[in-house]
Amino acid sequence: MTGAGSASERLRALGLELPRPGRDSNYVNHRTVGAGIHISGQLPYRDGELLGQGVVGLDVDVPAARSLARQAALNALAVAADAVGDLERVRIVQMLVFVASTPELGEQSRVADAASELFVQVLGENGRHARTAIGVAGLPRRSPVEIQLICTAV
Amino acid sequence: MTGAGSASERLRALGLELPRPGRDSNYVNHRTVGAGIHISGQLPYRDGELLGQGVVGLDVDVPAARSLARQAALNALAVAADAVGDLERVRIVQMLVFVASTPELGEQSRVADAASELFVQVLGENGRHARTAIGVAGLPRRSPVEIQLICTAV
Amino acid sequence: MTGAGSASERLRALGLELPRPGRDSNYVNHRTVGAGIHISGQLPYRDGELLGQGVVGLDVDVPAARSLARQAALNALAVAADAVGDLERVRIVQMLVFVASTPELGEQSRVADAASELFVQVLGENGRHARTAIGVAGLPRRSPVEIQLICTAV
Repeated sequence: MTGAGSASERLRALGLELPRPGRDSNYVNHRTVGAGIHISGQLPYRDGELLGQGVVGLDVDVPAARSLARQAALNALAVAADAVGDLERVRIVQMLVFVASTPELGEQSRVADAASELFVQVLGENGRHARTAIGVAGLPRRSPVEIQLICTAV
Repeated sequence: MTGAGSASERLRALGLELPRPGRDSNYVNHRTVGAGIHISGQLPYRDGELLGQGVVGLDVDVPAARSLARQAALNALAVAADAVGDLERVRIVQMLVFVASTPELGEQSRVADAASELFVQVLGENGRHARTAIGVAGLPRRSPVEIQLICTAV
Repeated sequence: MTGAGSASERLRALGLELPRPGRDSNYVNHRTVGAGIHISGQLPYRDGELLGQGVVGLDVDVPAARSLARQAALNALAVAADAVGDLERVRIVQMLVFVASTPELGEQSRVADAASELFVQVLGENGRHARTAIGVAGLPRRSPVEIQLICTAV
């Protein structure tokens, strides 16, 4: 699945490139304590545009939510690469996946899988992580998905 | 409350045994950064069966939710013991308790207390932890409770 | 914005003082692993009274929620100062802001900004942090806002 070559080569082979992390304000894109790098919650923006809005199970279906989770994961990976200084040295420690959900949904893990898969496709073993997926009432700017990451450098 | 003897003896005295942690996939049961061990979100499974479904305050009452929280905490403790290599050396650092809740519930802390109590009953002072309890829209497989843990080895 | 002087002086200039952290029970106000200090979820209490209840977007408007977020942040800062032993040496690493929200709200970041601003006003550069804001179904005691913090000592 993860193939040969560097993480950057695998990223290109997936037809993806890392976006440029946004500028900081009162809060920052990442903060480090000890070996752990905490990355601020990432939404599925691409080129400055939020790719979806609404609640999964109501306004957004699971395949669309998976696509949004993958985009949010890509944005988190860009911040991680920026924080570590080298995509090749990023190791994912823990991911918290928030899915705006109806009370009936129950498929938050399938949504989160799309983000987990991207990390493993790009980083291989270093992409495997501890994970929690939950369904929330709503998210900033009515995004259907948000991803929070802890990573480290190898 | 915590009595004498080892953590393993206290666990047996409670009539409990640690389940075997499930196998890993794209994500893993735990990942370590520095001294911190991050454990993936745990649901109230027992012998492969999810012990409850639905929203607390609607489908599930608080006593039932407390029982589910205790089971999820037991599962998290099993992963912690596996990660540390020895139940006696597990120290709980932080617990995040997610309770699928109606907007009116307000009793998430009482649900979380059941998980906190288990840790203290089994681990004594090493079981005391920082904690956050929140009410969420829904959880994977419509579980009423999910527990995320950070632990360390003493 | 952050002005001169010590963090304590800036706090006084804002007309604020740190509350005394509550007593511990099964769970504790904070736990440390490596350099990271994990602080239990803080609600907007002042002098033992919860300053608001209900769901933002329904019972509570955004300006009121911002005021509650600021109070919860002050309480978290008090625990942080107690944990570090000196307010001047507190550095905020990561904040998770939970806002009890209607599915339509979308303004969780504006609520969280009030907490972020307090940290920067008091601690300057040490107050800048990684952050995630989400909307949840409900919170303990029907609080509209809850704040979870990771900090460290500088």
